[in-house]
Amino acid sequence: MRHALSLARRGPARGVNPQVGCVILGPDGSRIAEGWHRGSGSPHAEVDALSKLARGEARGATAVVTLEPCNHTGKTGPCTDALIAAGVGRVFFASTDPGVPSGGGARRLRDAGITVVGGVLRTEADELILPWLTAVRRGRPWVTVKWASSLDGRVAAADGTSQWITGTAARQRVHEMRAASDAIAVGTGTVLADDPSLTARGDGGELMEHQPVPVVIGQSMVPASARVFQHPQPAIITASRDLDAVLADLFSRGIRRLFVEGGPTLASAFIAAGLADDYAVFLGPVLLGAGRAAVDAIGVETIQDARRLRTIGIEQLGDDLLILARPAMPLDPLPPATEGSH
Amino acid sequence: MRHALSLARRGPARGVNPQVGCVILGPDGSRIAEGWHRGSGSPHAEVDALSKLARGEARGATAVVTLEPCNHTGKTGPCTDALIAAGVGRVFFASTDPGVPSGGGARRLRDAGITVVGGVLRTEADELILPWLTAVRRGRPWVTVKWASSLDGRVAAADGTSQWITGTAARQRVHEMRAASDAIAVGTGTVLADDPSLTARGDGGELMEHQPVPVVIGQSMVPASARVFQHPQPAIITASRDLDAVLADLFSRGIRRLFVEGGPTLASAFIAAGLADDYAVFLGPVLLGAGRAAVDAIGVETIQDARRLRTIGIEQLGDDLLILARPAMPLDPLPPATEGSH
Repeated sequence: MRHALSLARRGPARGVNPQVGCVILGPDGSRIAEGWHRGSGSPHAEVDALSKLARGEARGATAVVTLEPCNHTGKTGPCTDALIAAGVGRVFFASTDPGVPSGGGARRLRDAGITVVGGVLRTEADELILPWLTAVRRGRPWVTVKWASSLDGRVAAADGTSQWITGTAARQRVHEMRAASDAIAVGTGTVLADDPSLTARGDGGELMEHQPVPVVIGQSMVPASARVFQHPQPAIITASRDLDAVLADLFSRGIRRLFVEGGPTLASAFIAAGLADDYAVFLGPVLLGAGRAAVDAIGVETIQDARRLRTIGIEQLGDDLLILARPAMPLDPLPPATEGSH
Repeated sequence: MRHALSLARRGPARGVNPQVGCVILGPDGSRIAEGWHRGSGSPHAEVDALSKLARGEARGATAVVTLEPCNHTGKTGPCTDALIAAGVGRVFFASTDPGVPSGGGARRLRDAGITVVGGVLRTEADELILPWLTAVRRGRPWVTVKWASSLDGRVAAADGTSQWITGTAARQRVHEMRAASDAIAVGTGTVLADDPSLTARGDGGELMEHQPVPVVIGQSMVPASARVFQHPQPAIITASRDLDAVLADLFSRGIRRLFVEGGPTLASAFIAAGLADDYAVFLGPVLLGAGRAAVDAIGVETIQDARRLRTIGIEQLGDDLLILARPAMPLDPLPPATEGSH
């Protein structure tokens, strides 16, 4: 299963499907094939692994998969049918598929006479695909709120200037995070003030292969000349500040990871609504002492109500610092299952 | 010299004298004695090392000292005289003594026929005693500005509550920093709002051996019932907001390291005046979104004028982060020498 997890990590973390890896073991326990999922529309990990084998070669074999094999027909056929047709004798899997249409794979396999063991290294596997699992269970994208501030928490100087609080290494890291997301959201205020392109670019300024969908949230008018309209992906203009409705709409469009880039009004709205699953806080070693704060109204009146976070990573990027954090207490309890998409 | 530097580090970093170490080498190059300075009133490192030797044993020996031997009589006699009287043949030293009364030791030794070589490992030695060197050259204490804020730069919630933004490990680190300082400064506003004791305490709440002098800066009235008046050291109430005058006064009282604990008004005044040599920024993993900012008016209007810092250390303390930084560009050029005290 550890090897299957390392195969899973080769696939993209964004997109409508999660990262999944699969190893096929022969009757003597040796690895006879392996596979992983390369993103929506490409074969699932089990099918990818089975494709490496000749007809009949998987008969009586054991499939080790990081996620419960799916049981429905999406862009590709159900993995359960592929495993049954190949004559696999045993299936070990780690995470349970939370999807309504895609779940139930373990039962289907057992009904076909296959020995099925679930939950192997489940904690590790769940952690790997936590954003996807959470998104599918909630029926809304996993939300990362990002900002870049001075050490004293300001995102701009008194006159509104902000280029640059952080250095090139930190800015390049932001581009990588954009490329790892399905969509980037900004508020209309940020479009009007900064006119960002919202593309993911390499350190030579070139466009990266994957471009997240630009999403503009808010009710103000966005000029037709705004750079988001030159983005390689068509921009989504929500014309709404109802974040629940916006997120449900983005989910229905296949967006599982949303990167919220600001400004402070939008970031604060996500935090206040309890919709921030993840924080990416870049701190530049500068002091501003005045100017816009990174976070404003989030509904905290007294220290007892402070939003407590748990730091999950710290990176030094040139002279800057990136602090990765999540809510210390889980957000609202997850519903058991909503809509599947595997 | 490396061994002498490691001896120097055994002494206290605070106080009117710097950390100094000394090794005496016999004619065959072997170490025959070593010493270090243990704080004001105790023997200087050279005298400490010579005291380990019998009369005549240092004749023709080599003294390796991290700081140019002093040439004046303070609480103890001049080290130059002790070295000459002992018949030392050669002296190697690292840092040059910047003091007006104490400097000139090298010349005095050479006049007595001793071979003197200065500047050995000078960069390393200067860095070790940088706060002291800077304080003596400027004629004002080395100033460390400390604050503890939320990740979004607030030192209190909207209603003024602030206990606790950081956890016990971070607070214990603050007590250690207090104990390593000669004095702690707070503004009158902080005394009125928080009534801090300004003592350095261990993790059981017990008083540490060294207690920094509490200093209250500002023009507001301080009530006689304030806890600073129960401090083991008599509090200094400046009744002035003129920081240059306050610092000159503290220097004349022997204070070389000042720890500025806030609040934001006082911290910002030190930063605005270009008087912050060092920053100690504690960040708790919480968001407040409103409430007092750690830093306010420091005279920065536009991003080009941002106070740029250089991070010199990052520590993880429980769930909190301590960022140690200094100005990226040196403060006003150092005068060559003002008043000495070695």
